[in-house]
Amino acid sequence: MSVLVVGSIALDTVKTPVEEHADQLGGSASYAAVGASFFAPVKLVGVVGDDFPKSEFDFWKSRNIDPSGVQQVAGKTFRWSGEYAWDLNTRETKSVALNVFENFWPELPENLRETQFVLLANIAPSLQSHVLDQMRRPRFVVADTMDLWIETTRKDLDALLPRVDLLILNESEARMMTGDTSLIRAGRSLRRMGPKYVAVKKGEHGALLFGPDDFFSCGAYPLEDIHDPTGAGDTFAGGLAGYLAGKGDGEVDFALLRRAVIFGSVLASFNVEAFSLERLRSLTSEEIDERYEMFRLMSQFEVLP
Amino acid sequence: MSVLVVGSIALDTVKTPVEEHADQLGGSASYAAVGASFFAPVKLVGVVGDDFPKSEFDFWKSRNIDPSGVQQVAGKTFRWSGEYAWDLNTRETKSVALNVFENFWPELPENLRETQFVLLANIAPSLQSHVLDQMRRPRFVVADTMDLWIETTRKDLDALLPRVDLLILNESEARMMTGDTSLIRAGRSLRRMGPKYVAVKKGEHGALLFGPDDFFSCGAYPLEDIHDPTGAGDTFAGGLAGYLAGKGDGEVDFALLRRAVIFGSVLASFNVEAFSLERLRSLTSEEIDERYEMFRLMSQFEVLP
Repeated sequence: MSVLVVGSIALDTVKTPVEEHADQLGGSASYAAVGASFFAPVKLVGVVGDDFPKSEFDFWKSRNIDPSGVQQVAGKTFRWSGEYAWDLNTRETKSVALNVFENFWPELPENLRETQFVLLANIAPSLQSHVLDQMRRPRFVVADTMDLWIETTRKDLDALLPRVDLLILNESEARMMTGDTSLIRAGRSLRRMGPKYVAVKKGEHGALLFGPDDFFSCGAYPLEDIHDPTGAGDTFAGGLAGYLAGKGDGEVDFALLRRAVIFGSVLASFNVEAFSLERLRSLTSEEIDERYEMFRLMSQFEVLP
Repeated sequence: MSVLVVGSIALDTVKTPVEEHADQLGGSASYAAVGASFFAPVKLVGVVGDDFPKSEFDFWKSRNIDPSGVQQVAGKTFRWSGEYAWDLNTRETKSVALNVFENFWPELPENLRETQFVLLANIAPSLQSHVLDQMRRPRFVVADTMDLWIETTRKDLDALLPRVDLLILNESEARMMTGDTSLIRAGRSLRRMGPKYVAVKKGEHGALLFGPDDFFSCGAYPLEDIHDPTGAGDTFAGGLAGYLAGKGDGEVDFALLRRAVIFGSVLASFNVEAFSLERLRSLTSEEIDERYEMFRLMSQFEVLP
């Protein structure tokens, strides 16, 4: 089955202590769509300016990403620029130019409204809700968010949550949203705010998944070198939602969600190995399956005799 | 097989935001010995003063902990007092009175020197080496350490490491010791300093285990409420080393070490549920096996079809 991905499409300028690249493909929907495309056909929804490279449309099509929901309008594409500290753990936003994104108010083409799986990648929760309003009873809705929306548009976010099957956020956002320092209590509180499932991303410490009766914990893939953390969370969400859609003929149960979290982690681990989307552009399904198996080997221990 | 445990034995006064308890059994060897005793007979080595409660000797004997290596000398038992911050994540040492521990220089009774498994619980590395000097070719040596020794007696610690099969430390200590912010690189660097295996404790984020050819990552047991974090690391080390000794008829391989890390985590998760050693005093093997199984359930995901 297909997955509809809506979010930001940007041209990023990113600086790390060792490299700097300007005007590279970025934005939450860009990473999420490519991450998802390894597992399922993607319907991409977003907005770009008239300066947006045509080659990226060709790239999307080559990856089975349908860009019919991407509006190309007069003006400049959303631009973001950031710089990472020496240990790549913190980053500073140097500039944001919303440009055509400022007036983005997605109207979904009729043929996209029946898509069964929806990933609301990181954008304002009011936009996420607006997209959901146009969908016809999707089977499974995944929503990603960030600290900015928790701080500035909390009411919109609260209104969205009961409409979401799986909420994804990182550990500091989970703590911020619940006011609880314990991630275990925070994960459970977040479920009481509406979503059936909650995934908490912990970066180098892996991820947690909370469900009505189940709990899942996994580590991160052991990377020695990270080149560009940008988009790791978006790629995680994309890989996860794409995997669900790809396997989505039956019920989405906790066993499927566990595997989806691992595939999301696998995709994110590849993404940070190079700048922008470069690693995802060359990634193969064989490499993904190999790393999934590595994940299994590094996590397994035996049943008690 | 038995495990020899050497470390500190103390009477602790611990304050959390909700409770305070004075002169409770504490110290690295106390937690480690009781943790280990669920899996193997323990030979305890340490020193106490003449004020040390006789009831604790009776408790040790009831748990198959042989206290013949515990010297009771004139003077007061080592005392430590600390207070935890509101979120229990940081603590401040309020007072330390080494008392009889100040001149502790363990001389092992002859019958303890043949013990095949050794846990050098957290004490000065020179004391840990001095204990190893007296052992007759033990099969497996586990050493725990802390930031204090990394900062103040680094040379002694460096001299100990090549004599150790498994080094245990927490994530900030691993970073401090290697000067590397990446825990993956830090774990691998630590192995190059001597120990065959390195376990990195990450508190609520679980643990990592590094070996010559293998890597293992596990989460922490999802606890909603922690009452007293004191001794969690010592109990982890004790449970781990005790499990190895209990199963130690064959080779200590990576599969056994994975399970030992889980049992260490299980023991530590129980320990923080109550003050001092109170939870361990009432703990049963059935409860341990149940939680091991919970760990397995929360960590597992399927092989790819």
